[in-house]
Amino acid sequence: MNEAGDPKGSPVFLPETNMNRVAHFGVVRLSLAALLFVAGHALAQTDPLPSWNDGAAKKAIIDFVQATTTHGNAKFVPPAERVATFDQDGTLWVEHPMYSQILYCLDRVPALVKAKPELAKVEPFKTVMSGDREAIAKLPFKEIEKILVATLTGMPVDDFNAEARKWLAEARDPRWKRPYTELTYLPMQEVLKYLRGNGYKTYIVTGGGQDFVRVYAEQTYGIPPEQVVGSAAGTKYGYDKNGRPFLTKDPKLLLNNNDAGKPEGIHLMIGRRPYAAFGNSGGDQQMLEYTTAGDGARLAMLVLHDDAKREYAYGPAKGMRDTKVGAFSQKLYDEATKKGWTVISMKDDWQKIFAFE
Amino acid sequence: MNEAGDPKGSPVFLPETNMNRVAHFGVVRLSLAALLFVAGHALAQTDPLPSWNDGAAKKAIIDFVQATTTHGNAKFVPPAERVATFDQDGTLWVEHPMYSQILYCLDRVPALVKAKPELAKVEPFKTVMSGDREAIAKLPFKEIEKILVATLTGMPVDDFNAEARKWLAEARDPRWKRPYTELTYLPMQEVLKYLRGNGYKTYIVTGGGQDFVRVYAEQTYGIPPEQVVGSAAGTKYGYDKNGRPFLTKDPKLLLNNNDAGKPEGIHLMIGRRPYAAFGNSGGDQQMLEYTTAGDGARLAMLVLHDDAKREYAYGPAKGMRDTKVGAFSQKLYDEATKKGWTVISMKDDWQKIFAFE
Repeated sequence: MNEAGDPKGSPVFLPETNMNRVAHFGVVRLSLAALLFVAGHALAQTDPLPSWNDGAAKKAIIDFVQATTTHGNAKFVPPAERVATFDQDGTLWVEHPMYSQILYCLDRVPALVKAKPELAKVEPFKTVMSGDREAIAKLPFKEIEKILVATLTGMPVDDFNAEARKWLAEARDPRWKRPYTELTYLPMQEVLKYLRGNGYKTYIVTGGGQDFVRVYAEQTYGIPPEQVVGSAAGTKYGYDKNGRPFLTKDPKLLLNNNDAGKPEGIHLMIGRRPYAAFGNSGGDQQMLEYTTAGDGARLAMLVLHDDAKREYAYGPAKGMRDTKVGAFSQKLYDEATKKGWTVISMKDDWQKIFAFE
Repeated sequence: MNEAGDPKGSPVFLPETNMNRVAHFGVVRLSLAALLFVAGHALAQTDPLPSWNDGAAKKAIIDFVQATTTHGNAKFVPPAERVATFDQDGTLWVEHPMYSQILYCLDRVPALVKAKPELAKVEPFKTVMSGDREAIAKLPFKEIEKILVATLTGMPVDDFNAEARKWLAEARDPRWKRPYTELTYLPMQEVLKYLRGNGYKTYIVTGGGQDFVRVYAEQTYGIPPEQVVGSAAGTKYGYDKNGRPFLTKDPKLLLNNNDAGKPEGIHLMIGRRPYAAFGNSGGDQQMLEYTTAGDGARLAMLVLHDDAKREYAYGPAKGMRDTKVGAFSQKLYDEATKKGWTVISMKDDWQKIFAFE
């Protein structure tokens, strides 16, 4: 018997008649050892990351999972401690030309102005209402922030959830003409499933709004609300006119989940240091540092957007164009190399980028 | 066949020879339906809450679990949404004469004064150092707060965890002469296990410090750090002299997880409304309101400390003595009755209070 198994050799099949007898609790001549061998053989033949090209990135993921989940391995991690964290924008789904949540907020402005007509004459709402895309694109972040506060806070949590859900169902990305929730990276979806299949709890740790991401994370990534850590404002508890309690979204920011805010948010919301962390920009650096500062096997990966044809190319690492949205500096690139973090090249490492391709 | 099953009737046993054949994948004459009936019967005979006396409280828990986990029941709750929240002090373990975390902070004062001798002459540290128990007991909460800030913040997270772990191993409750972690209520431990066995995620939602409770929650209750929601200050990310990143506990309070802070904390940390909530004082009222404001079956329970002999008796509900620690007012008692929340009488509903009894 070939213990290693040859994926191209003859597959081992049970005679169908015996299989039927197993299913019907019939007389079974097959020993348990033989059954386990067949099961092991079948697993060895299944590639957990079929959308990845063979290379250092794919190998790093598989080596990490095998080392941390194999009993007896010095790097074995008990199931309860298996935590993997993922940035969202640019790591799990498309973030260019603009973060989806910002587009949501801009799209909410007309309804906001309708409810509060006095805003029509006030910046930055005036510019957004003008529809002048160039002028909107030039709004400084301080002005954008006013739009975020006005469209993301002040309403009951349930109303916000309903509005966000409606937008996500209706809005379309202008390039792919698809809902934003379809613009997730298939190779990363495979990593999420592969890690979960090996006992890892997968978390989103995003600079985006925690409540916004929670609206779709479960359906889009299989990540439940309690495993979404994001920038978070508080809520205020109160009662409606019938005495029914409800929560209102408060403008006060509790957690700015970017840069150093990521490890701080991880401590607040999870209370464990991750064993694996995935990001794609300078805002993820501290999360990767914090992850790899722990003992044992740690996996740190950064997605590099170097595929102008199938997605986008931006850096400024490797001489690609600079960007305000998800910048990956040459300094970060050099540091990743120095520290042994793995840079994922979308162009070279991903055979397929989207499920719909 | 008696479908309802009579736990005191003749038990249905399989002939042992047949059981052995099942175990050995041998010839099985028993039908699947018969097997399922036997399994169901065996389960019905196992009391999931053996430390509870029969009564309304025990029945409320079992009815809730059966309704929400039985496929086809109108009140069925999908597994992903099964969330149950538990206050800790006075609900899962003893809180009198004083919350364990306050005792920890008081016990830390000598080490603190040793490190910062100037504190010896400053209140409230001076009073604590005097050892005058009566004077310490009279310190107003504002002064106690200064002790909390000084002993719970300003140090690296890892140092705090190590100190808390050491104290928990060494400190003893003066009445029972046991570690505080042994003073958990056996009937509530049974509820935690019963709910988890039925697919519920169990959370602690405590006014106590999130980091402090996380140190022992996993070992003491089987509740992992990511399922502990507590009063939380932030942390600050930084680097030691070797460039290794670490988190320092910051004094700024992010979440005061009492009263209205409990539903606010639940939204922040879990993002789902609980189906079941357990508390014991006015600080839990909003959590129970928020829980029961949801659709379908909801379970709201309050532990009443009315057993002076086996534990403590305090209210001021039902004419028991008033207390600053875990007060259960007559108004809350009346409201619970009005709203259909179940009050658990420690005296009448609990056959046994501690595992060591």
